[in-house]
Amino acid sequence: MFFKITHKNNGSRARTGILETPHGSIETPVFMVVGTKATVKALDPEDLKKIKTQIVLANTYHLTLSPGEKLIKEKFGSMREFMSWKGPMITDSGGFQVFSLGFGMEHNVGKLGNIFPAESVFKNKTAEKQEKYAKIDENGVSFKSPIDGKKHRLTPETSIRIQEDLGADIILAFDECTSPLHDHEYTEKALERTHRWAEQCIKAHKTKQRLLGIIQGGAFEDLRKKSSKFISSLDFPGYAIGGSLGNSKKDMHDILEWCIPNLPEEKPRHLLGIGAIEDLFECVERGIDMFDCVSPTRLARSGYLFVSPTEKGSRQNKFRINIKNSANRTSAKPIDKTCDCYTCKNFSRAYLRHLFANNELLYHRLGSIHNLRFILRLMEKIRESIKKDKFTELKNKWL
Amino acid sequence: MFFKITHKNNGSRARTGILETPHGSIETPVFMVVGTKATVKALDPEDLKKIKTQIVLANTYHLTLSPGEKLIKEKFGSMREFMSWKGPMITDSGGFQVFSLGFGMEHNVGKLGNIFPAESVFKNKTAEKQEKYAKIDENGVSFKSPIDGKKHRLTPETSIRIQEDLGADIILAFDECTSPLHDHEYTEKALERTHRWAEQCIKAHKTKQRLLGIIQGGAFEDLRKKSSKFISSLDFPGYAIGGSLGNSKKDMHDILEWCIPNLPEEKPRHLLGIGAIEDLFECVERGIDMFDCVSPTRLARSGYLFVSPTEKGSRQNKFRINIKNSANRTSAKPIDKTCDCYTCKNFSRAYLRHLFANNELLYHRLGSIHNLRFILRLMEKIRESIKKDKFTELKNKWL
Repeated sequence: MFFKITHKNNGSRARTGILETPHGSIETPVFMVVGTKATVKALDPEDLKKIKTQIVLANTYHLTLSPGEKLIKEKFGSMREFMSWKGPMITDSGGFQVFSLGFGMEHNVGKLGNIFPAESVFKNKTAEKQEKYAKIDENGVSFKSPIDGKKHRLTPETSIRIQEDLGADIILAFDECTSPLHDHEYTEKALERTHRWAEQCIKAHKTKQRLLGIIQGGAFEDLRKKSSKFISSLDFPGYAIGGSLGNSKKDMHDILEWCIPNLPEEKPRHLLGIGAIEDLFECVERGIDMFDCVSPTRLARSGYLFVSPTEKGSRQNKFRINIKNSANRTSAKPIDKTCDCYTCKNFSRAYLRHLFANNELLYHRLGSIHNLRFILRLMEKIRESIKKDKFTELKNKWL
Repeated sequence: MFFKITHKNNGSRARTGILETPHGSIETPVFMVVGTKATVKALDPEDLKKIKTQIVLANTYHLTLSPGEKLIKEKFGSMREFMSWKGPMITDSGGFQVFSLGFGMEHNVGKLGNIFPAESVFKNKTAEKQEKYAKIDENGVSFKSPIDGKKHRLTPETSIRIQEDLGADIILAFDECTSPLHDHEYTEKALERTHRWAEQCIKAHKTKQRLLGIIQGGAFEDLRKKSSKFISSLDFPGYAIGGSLGNSKKDMHDILEWCIPNLPEEKPRHLLGIGAIEDLFECVERGIDMFDCVSPTRLARSGYLFVSPTEKGSRQNKFRINIKNSANRTSAKPIDKTCDCYTCKNFSRAYLRHLFANNELLYHRLGSIHNLRFILRLMEKIRESIKKDKFTELKNKWL
């Protein structure tokens, strides 16, 4: 049994559950910590254990470029041994990075249109040059490595094969992630490809890894409904919602409403790449069980540290303080006095600001520990609240 | 009792001892871990405990510029609370940084002349601009902050006052560190100033912190003898050998031979800023009890990781491998299989090379943990060998 629902919330689709993997059980709703290149930026596996990480997500695209899945498989067995992480892992399929390399760059957008700019794997390249990096055809995508310019090709079959070599417990189907600027015609064409690729992935998949299907369809109601019906008709043990989530929070919520009712109750649902505090509440409420997002560590590195409502965290300030603010220069307080992380237990805002101002490496570690533990602890509270039928109260307290 | 000798080696000046501080006992010979800006680069205080750090050295110059000793004193009590390090600490006096800002920059040299270039606090500035930053007169030194251009002044009295505010267990007298390119005349003039300043430091010093005197005199035999006799005539609980150590290993050894016989046997001796593996053996043999050096962490960040003779570490390769070497790309071996550090127990050279090649922050942490633990463990072995009268055997095995 891969997934078991343990409690359903009254009055919403929120639920708690357990995902079983060969390397441990995962309580849901879960925030999956992103370790793109087989490392959660600035943290080691002991840190991950201490902050109570349940599962780490690594990226197929990045790892096939460096150091290569063959090295990992042949010399180490799997990513787990390579990075010395003993808990569960998941890999994505490379579909999102293909989008970033291709249309994401051309359109200069991310999954949420105007809300986030595209993940900039090619910060220093011009848009013209970026376009050339990825080319999609009916059978897969060809792209050049930004590291050494070598040609690579990802297809449903190669993505599954690479993910098998990387050896995560959960893997994802290879999909085409469309841009919020794509029209209905293109999005539908891409959807048909993604559906065909989903069937090819199932056929290519030979291991006991759990392969999740991915629903696409952009912000188009008919396409999202079509995709969620089609993908859920295939025998996947769980489903992910990927691709463009429109241009606003409302678009994202609408998309969930179009998809979730078509998905089987008893299988887990992963919302790819989303993880803002507000979104965690809104999407758990709409029935999402799994989240992953780079934002906690990325925000930490930029000086943004999470605070709870007791420290004046709110939807308006996105539950963040900016450690650079001069008020923090002399503050002997921790980031958040209600937080149980190593950073809050041992260091002041003034010390963190001093480290940040002096470009000290330790800052990144301490900031990342806090932001990740903050989110993981919030998920613990969310699970607790669902079990006690107090989810709405918790959500109202925060939002 | 500040210092107690516990064992003397047969046939050399090597000895073991114990330094007592209010925050713990320190076994000597000791390598003091450098935490310039109240942080050992990339490591946290838990890491320092795990690698068995005995004492951390922080820099007065850097801390007075940012965040300022007043903030540390008034809001936290001392650097120990500020950085959350519970063990012993030492601060330098700012004398060496004054040298770096002044003649070190003008002459483009460091303590060891041609061996190391000057510590480049102003990497991007031209030599002409650098000269203007520090100006020495009979009473102290005036300099501009490279952070905000503000004028600062260090004198024997202000250096002691700042070090009192920083609150380390051991502090250093304010001295003028000369350059290997200074002639006898200038070096002697500077020496007279340093001697006068030493007396002023003793007068200004009001706390129970242990204040060490500093011997100067460059690579001139008469001046080093004069300085070691004069400084040791003052009532310091220990002595540091600072300043230019000439242009070769032989010069450095000669300088120790000129100084050490003039120092009282029962007081500890600190060789400022030296810490290469070869030097640790050579200088322990010549009677040094305390070392500090940024090189283990700095080398780690540049990709150089220490290996013992069993892993082909030697005087010729400076006991280092370069993690960038392509042979490490596929190596499932640890850096050094005889090492007991967290990095060697959990990670392969291939993984470290992958992190380094991808500019992953975790690399700096893992590399620094290894290099520091390697040196601290070497010092444990050196102490053990002295106690068992096997120091020469250990030295011969390594060198």
